Amino acid sequence: MADWLEEIGRLARERAKAGLTRQLRPRSAGGAVVDLAGNDYLGLSDHPRVVDGARQALAAYGLGATGSRLVRGSTDAHTALEDALAGWLGAEAALVFSSGYLANLAVVRAVAPVCDLIVSDAYNHASLIDGCRIAGTPVRVAPHNDPAAVAALLDAHPGRAAVITESVFSVDGDLAPLTALHAVTSARGALLIVDDAHALGLLGPHGSGGVTAAGLAGQPDVIITATLSKALGGAGGVVAGPAAFIGHLVDTGRTFIYDTAPPPAVVAGVLAAVEVAQAADDRRAVLFRRGKLIAARMRDAGFPTRDPAAGVLSVPAPGPEAAVAWAANCRDRGVAVGCFRPPSTPDGSSRLRLTVNAGVAEEAFARALTVILECAP
Amino acid sequence: MADWLEEIGRLARERAKAGLTRQLRPRSAGGAVVDLAGNDYLGLSDHPRVVDGARQALAAYGLGATGSRLVRGSTDAHTALEDALAGWLGAEAALVFSSGYLANLAVVRAVAPVCDLIVSDAYNHASLIDGCRIAGTPVRVAPHNDPAAVAALLDAHPGRAAVITESVFSVDGDLAPLTALHAVTSARGALLIVDDAHALGLLGPHGSGGVTAAGLAGQPDVIITATLSKALGGAGGVVAGPAAFIGHLVDTGRTFIYDTAPPPAVVAGVLAAVEVAQAADDRRAVLFRRGKLIAARMRDAGFPTRDPAAGVLSVPAPGPEAAVAWAANCRDRGVAVGCFRPPSTPDGSSRLRLTVNAGVAEEAFARALTVILECAP
Repeated sequence: MADWLEEIGRLARERAKAGLTRQLRPRSAGGAVVDLAGNDYLGLSDHPRVVDGARQALAAYGLGATGSRLVRGSTDAHTALEDALAGWLGAEAALVFSSGYLANLAVVRAVAPVCDLIVSDAYNHASLIDGCRIAGTPVRVAPHNDPAAVAALLDAHPGRAAVITESVFSVDGDLAPLTALHAVTSARGALLIVDDAHALGLLGPHGSGGVTAAGLAGQPDVIITATLSKALGGAGGVVAGPAAFIGHLVDTGRTFIYDTAPPPAVVAGVLAAVEVAQAADDRRAVLFRRGKLIAARMRDAGFPTRDPAAGVLSVPAPGPEAAVAWAANCRDRGVAVGCFRPPSTPDGSSRLRLTVNAGVAEEAFARALTVILECAP
Repeated sequence: MADWLEEIGRLARERAKAGLTRQLRPRSAGGAVVDLAGNDYLGLSDHPRVVDGARQALAAYGLGATGSRLVRGSTDAHTALEDALAGWLGAEAALVFSSGYLANLAVVRAVAPVCDLIVSDAYNHASLIDGCRIAGTPVRVAPHNDPAAVAALLDAHPGRAAVITESVFSVDGDLAPLTALHAVTSARGALLIVDDAHALGLLGPHGSGGVTAAGLAGQPDVIITATLSKALGGAGGVVAGPAAFIGHLVDTGRTFIYDTAPPPAVVAGVLAAVEVAQAADDRRAVLFRRGKLIAARMRDAGFPTRDPAAGVLSVPAPGPEAAVAWAANCRDRGVAVGCFRPPSTPDGSSRLRLTVNAGVAEEAFARALTVILECAP
């Protein structure tokens, strides 16, 4: 065996000893597993209008976009989606990326030329952290959801800063104090970048997201990023904000310029999902009712679980082995749940991560909740 | 206007003065433009089998993968594509990403724990450069396609190194001396990472790529990355190599773990494209004949143009304005060509970038070539 592969193998054995080996478990189409692990919050990934929108664009354009957005990849479908997203989010303009990860890398880097400091919430997503690494601007990590600490960091710094947070955090599902954060940033001439991935489609009027819910839509010092792969049931990412900033991304965003455009069929399916999501107050009502029900049942069973801000619930487990066994037992009984252990958790504690999918049939949801409780440690 | 937007505007005016403003030009479905700009080299993006493969998976799975690969995103379609790609590329294992950009970020970062130095070709793609920035390992940039210079950089360094190159370079379309580079790296215990994006489907037996063409398939010290959005007509990226390395990516690759999986429909369409591409010696013959014909006609017209190594031709223009006008005139007459100017060109010179698409009808191709020559400065 090659020398370097021995070292790769040694690292793998270290991870195995620490219980950190990850395993891919492919699912089949139409499997009977009840999903309380994915991010298809509104159940739109297989909504007839979404599938039909994608199918029609597939027939019209073919599969791939055949090039980057600036060469051959921009189609009418991309423009239509960007217009719809900008309108929904109350932003001047929007730009679609082939992944939310790439959107976040782009947006953090794009503010670097006009900022001397980036303040990043301690629980921010890996893509935002990587964006900070690539940006090359000094970064200070702020304690989680602590506007006073953010204010202190900004006050200690003379130049212009950008503050980065998620709206609904991906692991614990808690809500950032966006209004308070914006009061802090706007008073100090700082930008506020909000990753709305887990709130878009769920919070705000017509599901327009956490930024809109906080009354910050269209503010000239707020930039929104989001994924199109969660409540919208598709794939890709979006950045929305002032038109001048979106133009700046088109001209300079490396993960935009040097990436193949997302497939027209995906983009068209997501556009259909936006239209469905805007009118889906019924699905949102189901989602919030189910989220509160899960939290209450978990608390009754002795697991202190907060009512979710959107579709993500964090249920504490006694330890990493118990969390793994809990999730495995649920899986064996046909219920998919997430399991997060250190070092993937921001606070070093193990938990189940449950997500609400409004598209799951009521009976299946009720059975899944029973299974989770019966499998509890 | 907000203070920071004034600065963004000032940067935009600077770019405009330097002629660096970029413009999105969306195309319609079924447009009559002849494509000599995209990367759909074999014309597979709208091949009936590719579209049909995607359509069937769309009906079976819905649009989005609904989660990361390790949570809910892995489907049978992902596994089938990974098995097919590994077999085609002669690698032990393969892992699919939602973008080639993300695949490249992952692979460079993944070798960092076992390398003390990264040697990167001066003309490497933005995604590889960003991978180097994120990896945190010292980087030395080697002169373009210069194995002796790579050897000198490795000899000056005591530890283990990784050497990164493209096989066919994306702007000039020239071929890296892969066999010579591997002789240099293997003699020194270094890894060789090859981005095969512009060669996969075109070079090697059954279109299996530039690494295979160089006789390096299955070597334990070679890692391949590629996109699924060029000759395969779809979207996404792939990393192929020793199974232990692919496992390392599954366990530690942030752009794999924390990214929504590519849509099953896209993955299934690409699998169909792999099957078509393997049997597409006829399309490859058309591609190489057309590439040689373009180069010969350009040389006849006084533009020194090399025969392409695969599907990309670089045609020198007298200057940036002439290149822009040339491309614009072609576009006005229904022919899409690429136009590269500094600072997007590695060597500071302006050129047209032409790509061959074997799926373009013979008559349309002939007309496009005539248009390009008639529009020449």
